[in-house]
Amino acid sequence: MRNIKITVEYDGAAYSGWQRQAGTGTIQEALENAAGRIMQETIRIVASGRTDAGVHALGQTAHFRTSTKLPVERIQAGMNSLLSPDIAITAIEEATASFHARYDSTSKVYQYFLYNAPVRSPLRRRYCWHVREPLDCEAMELAAASLRGSHDFSAFQSSGSDVKTTVRTVFATSLSRRADNMVIFEIEGDGFLRSMVRSIMGTLVDVGRRKITPEAFRSIMESGDRNRAGATAPPQGLFLKEVRYR
Amino acid sequence: MRNIKITVEYDGAAYSGWQRQAGTGTIQEALENAAGRIMQETIRIVASGRTDAGVHALGQTAHFRTSTKLPVERIQAGMNSLLSPDIAITAIEEATASFHARYDSTSKVYQYFLYNAPVRSPLRRRYCWHVREPLDCEAMELAAASLRGSHDFSAFQSSGSDVKTTVRTVFATSLSRRADNMVIFEIEGDGFLRSMVRSIMGTLVDVGRRKITPEAFRSIMESGDRNRAGATAPPQGLFLKEVRYR
Repeated sequence: MRNIKITVEYDGAAYSGWQRQAGTGTIQEALENAAGRIMQETIRIVASGRTDAGVHALGQTAHFRTSTKLPVERIQAGMNSLLSPDIAITAIEEATASFHARYDSTSKVYQYFLYNAPVRSPLRRRYCWHVREPLDCEAMELAAASLRGSHDFSAFQSSGSDVKTTVRTVFATSLSRRADNMVIFEIEGDGFLRSMVRSIMGTLVDVGRRKITPEAFRSIMESGDRNRAGATAPPQGLFLKEVRYR
Repeated sequence: MRNIKITVEYDGAAYSGWQRQAGTGTIQEALENAAGRIMQETIRIVASGRTDAGVHALGQTAHFRTSTKLPVERIQAGMNSLLSPDIAITAIEEATASFHARYDSTSKVYQYFLYNAPVRSPLRRRYCWHVREPLDCEAMELAAASLRGSHDFSAFQSSGSDVKTTVRTVFATSLSRRADNMVIFEIEGDGFLRSMVRSIMGTLVDVGRRKITPEAFRSIMESGDRNRAGATAPPQGLFLKEVRYR
């Protein structure tokens, strides 16, 4: 059996997230259906991790095993011709037999886009969260920096999640405001809990609105209490930018 | 009667262009309907010029006369609350009685976005033209520069157009390739014929593909022969960026 690694870009707006589930359209299902038709066998595609409904990816990664003899370029072109315009395989390569998209990843980079202006922007609306009130981005950046390092992130986890450990390591954070009023938050870590980036973003906006201080943000993180964190930011501003290996 | 100037941003994908016409949704109609409801009188909105079906605007301008006593901020907020998420009034101001959005404009700036990569991009597809073959952007830039100055642009006009003169003056052009494979063409002129920017873009891509030389591009422009120009580039890559006055 060959083991193939793919990089996938998708506009998540029309999908119920990555993971296959009965009755709703998912990215995994769309890819597995296209793969099955091209390779004429049942293909199971394993991603670096799930993304939630409405969340986008510039560089999601995944792997699958196949007995096809088709060259990778033919698999890519064939699948892309069957996939909806919302999904594309942007890179493909032969992987070692043991490669695993989830277990082998060393870090993931997420970006969250927020448009901070009094009037909504029709041309940006599909790919950001619109926040009208002026935000204190310096305070937000300071708060975001306190995420760096290894912490128990249960305060920023969706209720109902069930994972072995809620400790994750954040390697880097940045938050900056562009001249066009777009506020971009970037975070790299070894893994993320369910809705973690969106919960962080919602709480960072509470800091930007001066509802809480950067110190209070840190204490919310340290408390592990989901009820003290802010609302979960909407999905259309979130992008899985890159998954790193080795 | 007061005379009000507005700046409008819109995602043109779902509309049959700016100009009101029976049986299809247009930007003008959407704005006039919202204005009528807010100001409780029939409002006719005059833009700086039409945009074609599917073309976007970051900074379309328009004016309208009204007898309402509502402050401009209330007109803006009221109209924005009625308009679809695809259209927003981003600026509004009281204009002099004689101000005319079309006749008083001194120049318009258009941008065309083209994504030049072998694989299509789901996250960019709504706002650019995807061209797979590698393009020679230096040759395209050289060809674009020959547009500067006053010329008869009938070679780049939609067939069936009927205007008094086909002479227009182009003040500036630029064409550059970004690291993310987006090629951006920008053109500023005192006015544009129907489909002119998209016809130019289609012909510039012929230059980029080395189907014609930059010198041939210039001679097509000088010939005034529409049949020698390239195909009209698709609308979703075109943005009316700004309309300038005085």
